[in-house]
Amino acid sequence: MKKIINGVESLLEESLNGFAKAHSDIIQLNRQPHFVTRKQQTKAGKVALISGGGSGHEPLHTGLVGSGMLDAACPGQIFTSPTPDQMMAAAEAVENEAGVLFIVKNYAGDVMNFEIAAEMLDCQHQTVLVTDDVSLPKDHSTGRRGVAGTLIVEKIVGAAAEAGATLLECKALGERVNDNTASMGVALTSCTVPALGQPTFEIGDNEIEMGVGIHGERGREPMDLTSASDIVEHLVTAIDADLKPQAGQKILLHVNGFGATPAMELYLVYELAAELWQQRGVEVERSLVGNYTTSLDMAGCSITVTLLDDELTQLWDAPVHTANLRW
Amino acid sequence: MKKIINGVESLLEESLNGFAKAHSDIIQLNRQPHFVTRKQQTKAGKVALISGGGSGHEPLHTGLVGSGMLDAACPGQIFTSPTPDQMMAAAEAVENEAGVLFIVKNYAGDVMNFEIAAEMLDCQHQTVLVTDDVSLPKDHSTGRRGVAGTLIVEKIVGAAAEAGATLLECKALGERVNDNTASMGVALTSCTVPALGQPTFEIGDNEIEMGVGIHGERGREPMDLTSASDIVEHLVTAIDADLKPQAGQKILLHVNGFGATPAMELYLVYELAAELWQQRGVEVERSLVGNYTTSLDMAGCSITVTLLDDELTQLWDAPVHTANLRW
Repeated sequence: MKKIINGVESLLEESLNGFAKAHSDIIQLNRQPHFVTRKQQTKAGKVALISGGGSGHEPLHTGLVGSGMLDAACPGQIFTSPTPDQMMAAAEAVENEAGVLFIVKNYAGDVMNFEIAAEMLDCQHQTVLVTDDVSLPKDHSTGRRGVAGTLIVEKIVGAAAEAGATLLECKALGERVNDNTASMGVALTSCTVPALGQPTFEIGDNEIEMGVGIHGERGREPMDLTSASDIVEHLVTAIDADLKPQAGQKILLHVNGFGATPAMELYLVYELAAELWQQRGVEVERSLVGNYTTSLDMAGCSITVTLLDDELTQLWDAPVHTANLRW
Repeated sequence: MKKIINGVESLLEESLNGFAKAHSDIIQLNRQPHFVTRKQQTKAGKVALISGGGSGHEPLHTGLVGSGMLDAACPGQIFTSPTPDQMMAAAEAVENEAGVLFIVKNYAGDVMNFEIAAEMLDCQHQTVLVTDDVSLPKDHSTGRRGVAGTLIVEKIVGAAAEAGATLLECKALGERVNDNTASMGVALTSCTVPALGQPTFEIGDNEIEMGVGIHGERGREPMDLTSASDIVEHLVTAIDADLKPQAGQKILLHVNGFGATPAMELYLVYELAAELWQQRGVEVERSLVGNYTTSLDMAGCSITVTLLDDELTQLWDAPVHTANLRW
């Protein structure tokens, strides 16, 4: 295993310390238990948005705390759910007379721990479950996984909360974004979790893993390594079959790198995906290309599409000021 | 070679098309020859800043075109200098009655082609050569290489040009930033250039390459894989020996990922480097952590330090709006 680390035990703490120091103008880090909040106190009456999950997906979620987006993020150990005490302490720190909305990626550990925290909270609270990964069927036993679409839920609900939406409005909006969002990813290599010290899965030199999860879960099917056009068509077809956008539909197209994929390849994927949608009469209205929901050092990427309407577009465009997403 | 591409020949064109489409609010792409300019025309009398170099380092330089930074960027093929016709066409497109400043990383091909272009330009022009890589001695035959410090030169001179600095003021400022900037990198893996189809250099499972260049040039010395603290101390010591910051000196600390290094590791490197400077009484006043000057899919990172004064800090803080750097 080749990594720039001092030790498996100290990595998260040292990395969070660096993150907090590098972005001390935007966020602050609580250490026991770990959570990140905005530096600036919000106005009373603003719904507090809290997300979290295993580390290793940075900038999700700590890099998305700030004005116009999250109020707090709870980082677990790598690919490990944060614990209920983190979520409760974060909620106590940022709740501001309008309740707490948990935004949770659909993984058993995350769901369970956010539920435990929610049950113990004294304040109003709601949860939005993100389930955008269409590589699993809709009726999969534990439901679909939450992947790169989570950022889109967080950005859009973040803008609404900033503009004064109530807790129930934020929850309904988050669920609407989730319903209108679909993602699928492809891996060229596995990632290597430091505590494990070896790749999460084996993959041949001429193989790719279609429908891979963001923790290196094996995907829908291993495929032979093929052209970018074939790979993108595969991803777009799966997303299209799920969202069924009509001609004239406006979309947000997000190409997300898993961590080790050069920007040139991500923009190539974006180009090919945009072309395919445009051929179907779908209008690519907004774009986001880069490493946002990563899987440590995995090579590969995912495509996410959100069906836009005027309200969602306006909320997407609203100002955001976080460590890793700004406009 | 595992890459998401259609072919070696088409990669740059397809990728630039995607980049132009994804950021059509900020930049526009000229296709024959290739260069990227700002979408918005600048005010007459603003010095035009142009950079360029081989592709594969994204977001450098195309992702840094926009308000407060570059006026144009000329992308060559991967790790290959752009040609003089690109630079001349870019200069003609963006020159706006105040002359052109070329910002050039010190590589033989880049230097030669920018010189040829400069000789053929009708307008006023100057060049700043970036030579921040301290892994080579100062008296190295072709001079030191230009690496991640280039972004800092571009940002600071970009702010000055936006504020109305003259061509000679921009050149002098760029040279001052370069003189006060030092970088060194370390690679854990090689990158793989698509046209070559195999890693640029061999590196053992327990080896790292200290002082590596951003094209996968072998570095100062191969070393055994060691702790993050040892690696960072090595880099910081080399930079410190070059810049010799005194106690109380304010610095900009930039940790740059080469492409395949997880954000967690980059923030860990930042934390360790910041600690070492602070122990020496140096004040880390500004920070930048992320993938900015990449080497395709190389794992590793570089540390860059710029000695700040009030003027440089103010110019660093000035608003910037590009595809990949914004505040």
